[in-house]
Amino acid sequence: METMHTSLQTRLRARSGELDGPTSGLAPGYVQTNLVVLPQALASDFLLFCQRNPKPCPLLGVSSPGSRTFELLGENLDIATDVPRYRVWEKGEMVQECQDVSHLWRDDLVSFALGCSFSFEEALTDQNIDVRHITQGRNVPMFRTNIDTQAAGPFHGKLVVSMRPFLPADAIRAIQITSRFPSVHGAPVHIGDPALIGITDLQNPDYGQSVDIKPNEIPVFWACGVTPQSVLMATRPDFCLTHAPGCMLVTDRRNSELAIF
Amino acid sequence: METMHTSLQTRLRARSGELDGPTSGLAPGYVQTNLVVLPQALASDFLLFCQRNPKPCPLLGVSSPGSRTFELLGENLDIATDVPRYRVWEKGEMVQECQDVSHLWRDDLVSFALGCSFSFEEALTDQNIDVRHITQGRNVPMFRTNIDTQAAGPFHGKLVVSMRPFLPADAIRAIQITSRFPSVHGAPVHIGDPALIGITDLQNPDYGQSVDIKPNEIPVFWACGVTPQSVLMATRPDFCLTHAPGCMLVTDRRNSELAIF
Repeated sequence: METMHTSLQTRLRARSGELDGPTSGLAPGYVQTNLVVLPQALASDFLLFCQRNPKPCPLLGVSSPGSRTFELLGENLDIATDVPRYRVWEKGEMVQECQDVSHLWRDDLVSFALGCSFSFEEALTDQNIDVRHITQGRNVPMFRTNIDTQAAGPFHGKLVVSMRPFLPADAIRAIQITSRFPSVHGAPVHIGDPALIGITDLQNPDYGQSVDIKPNEIPVFWACGVTPQSVLMATRPDFCLTHAPGCMLVTDRRNSELAIF
Repeated sequence: METMHTSLQTRLRARSGELDGPTSGLAPGYVQTNLVVLPQALASDFLLFCQRNPKPCPLLGVSSPGSRTFELLGENLDIATDVPRYRVWEKGEMVQECQDVSHLWRDDLVSFALGCSFSFEEALTDQNIDVRHITQGRNVPMFRTNIDTQAAGPFHGKLVVSMRPFLPADAIRAIQITSRFPSVHGAPVHIGDPALIGITDLQNPDYGQSVDIKPNEIPVFWACGVTPQSVLMATRPDFCLTHAPGCMLVTDRRNSELAIF
């Protein structure tokens, strides 16, 4: 019998309903993505927004209208069933969470797969760099900044960043490592004083959970995939689907493939 | 008439005595190096020291004993005449500066060409990054740290670093850019709090000159080519030649060749 990739195994477990929670740590080595599904009327402006803001919105795949797959991201990949948990949004409000959105599928839906920091975090932990929120078993702390994104159509708003604290030598190494992964947020956007980008309290994140910052550590800030979601929801689209936080789409692409050198 | 490279032109100007001062800004695009010339008895330990400490001691060339050229660094290159100004050292004391060391040459001398930060600074200024000591027309500030080098034979001592202040986004970019140039000190060794590496006062460098640090700027520290010189001089070798500060050996290698990607 042919061996099935752990990525497809994970998708099939989500599809069957067996897996209905976070995907962190599942299918090691495989790229996991954020998912946004929009009516076609909004899709071209959202695509333009992603093009103009590649650091928070690194596009790994865009479906054809109505298609339930990303041709290049996986074999036997069903966008409407393979995420462990979806959120359904109407006019910017979350109306339900569910494990399958087949019954909501429409011919005008366009799906976006956006790179996720899991990919670069794997590269960091592979080198024994302490990624604090992983060590502490928490969600990464995320903050709204005072940095404007580049607007596109109705989409505009502030950049959201994730924060990871490091000792200086690890901060330098983390900048090098994440620079190799531009399709999953790439290099940090800021290092050091949080006030310079409008963050007042590192222990009070806008999303996720706070983490301990040890003596002599420097906070390092990366553009975050929550940015497109917050910008999108602010436009209160009539209908939209996303993954539930932490419940990502697992693809057949390898994290190591995303490294540009 | 064949066009002569500006690198060779510069060497010939030094050889003739016309050029007797700093080489900063001369022969743009060409690699300039630190020069250390040692009796063969010390050379193998010095070579080992460089091998063990590649960040402060990036070797671009080592001559054969007695040879006055670096085969791979330039056409018509004479180690004994082509540096604008040399220093002659005896038992660790500088005994003279001169423009030509032909009369001091010996069959047992081994020459070392070590990469210099000019190469990566050119890559920074090419991208409109403000390199403060250049903008201010000063020598880069350098500091002894509390970081031990890896000893080899009689050679041991503390790492010397150079410091350049940047706004956070430029600091990140500077880390990326200099990471591409491992043969000219490469990525920084430290960023942020100087006290963590034993530096008490950024306005009081151990070598070079202080520079202005503007609000919101972070100090970034690179391993410095003064390290091998200070370590070497501490052993008080009977005889040694070096370039005079800022008066480098100009080679035919291009800075862009040194980039690893």
